[in-house]
Amino acid sequence: MTLKLYYVPDTCSLASHIALIEAGAPYEAVRMSFASADQKQPDYLALNPKGRVPALLTEHGVLTETPALLAYIAQRYPAAQLAPLDDAYAFARVQAFNSYLCSTVHVAHAHRMRGSRWVDASDQAAITAMQKKAPQAVSECFALIERSMFTGPWVMGADYSVCDAYLFTLAQWWEADGVDPQQLPRLREHRERMAARPAVRRALAEEFA
Amino acid sequence: MTLKLYYVPDTCSLASHIALIEAGAPYEAVRMSFASADQKQPDYLALNPKGRVPALLTEHGVLTETPALLAYIAQRYPAAQLAPLDDAYAFARVQAFNSYLCSTVHVAHAHRMRGSRWVDASDQAAITAMQKKAPQAVSECFALIERSMFTGPWVMGADYSVCDAYLFTLAQWWEADGVDPQQLPRLREHRERMAARPAVRRALAEEFA
Repeated sequence: MTLKLYYVPDTCSLASHIALIEAGAPYEAVRMSFASADQKQPDYLALNPKGRVPALLTEHGVLTETPALLAYIAQRYPAAQLAPLDDAYAFARVQAFNSYLCSTVHVAHAHRMRGSRWVDASDQAAITAMQKKAPQAVSECFALIERSMFTGPWVMGADYSVCDAYLFTLAQWWEADGVDPQQLPRLREHRERMAARPAVRRALAEEFA
Repeated sequence: MTLKLYYVPDTCSLASHIALIEAGAPYEAVRMSFASADQKQPDYLALNPKGRVPALLTEHGVLTETPALLAYIAQRYPAAQLAPLDDAYAFARVQAFNSYLCSTVHVAHAHRMRGSRWVDASDQAAITAMQKKAPQAVSECFALIERSMFTGPWVMGADYSVCDAYLFTLAQWWEADGVDPQQLPRLREHRERMAARPAVRRALAEEFA
């Protein structure tokens, strides 16, 4: 079956989009728009009650959450070698990295535009306070990755993995988040190298066509 | 090798603690204290530069992030059947559930006590605004789980999994977070049933001894 990826350009769904291409998976990318509130329409909520992207429609049902989608794509297409599937410890390192991106880095970023998730939407002072702190919070996350998580040349070392697609996705937001790439020489070089990969170029071309 | 779990009582590390016991794993639970800032001491930061719990020391190295630890424990001790290891889709559902707890539910909860992660620590008004919103944000997460994620009798359906240990762990905070258990009949029954499991009782006894 053709997998169906529901995505919004310039969101974390790019990671799964890249992974599907790297995997050589048959897929259809279904573009959604936050501006049209597509993610809150009844048809989509029936698929994904969270009203978020990404969602991946498979022949068994719908999957959500980027770390889960990435592990699923890696496991479903083992020939693409997108994760160390036969080594529980190495696989757990992949999961730990992706979990950190999801629960800490993406969350720090989200405080710049999605403050009303965590304070009353009418409390403009609190929302501004979050926006003001976001550059520091996000920068500290990437500094930690640069210093103690990124092995090189790929996130996990010699082997490319789904972690690289996810890191690249969140690195798209550096400039808007107030992160200084000059402070992240290894991650900056990684972002440039990722941007040149055919799968990444194709995913971006599809999302911004 | 005896696995070493670094934990703080009444934190999300309880989920991994329960899973280790359910797995029948040889382990040592190393109690840390936020009050003593154990997690910021050089020895611990050398193990886990994030300065958070849990961390799991294995013969290969240190693992962090609850979803990664739970998947690792399930994979390392397959006889305990703590996750559907031979079915990529079912395994991805486990991952998706745990990822939601980690990146959305736990984060909503953390705004009640850890606001200075996302606004300046001196901005008491913004920190108060987060505390005020937390009950609603956390309640909405659990309402979504009750309504559309929890299968029953266990999170994933007929089979107990690491998801149950993680859900139970975050359900420990309902009352303090301002979540009304009366609104969550299925999850409330699950919490009661979990509290009676020998592994859960043993983990709690160890953590609060």
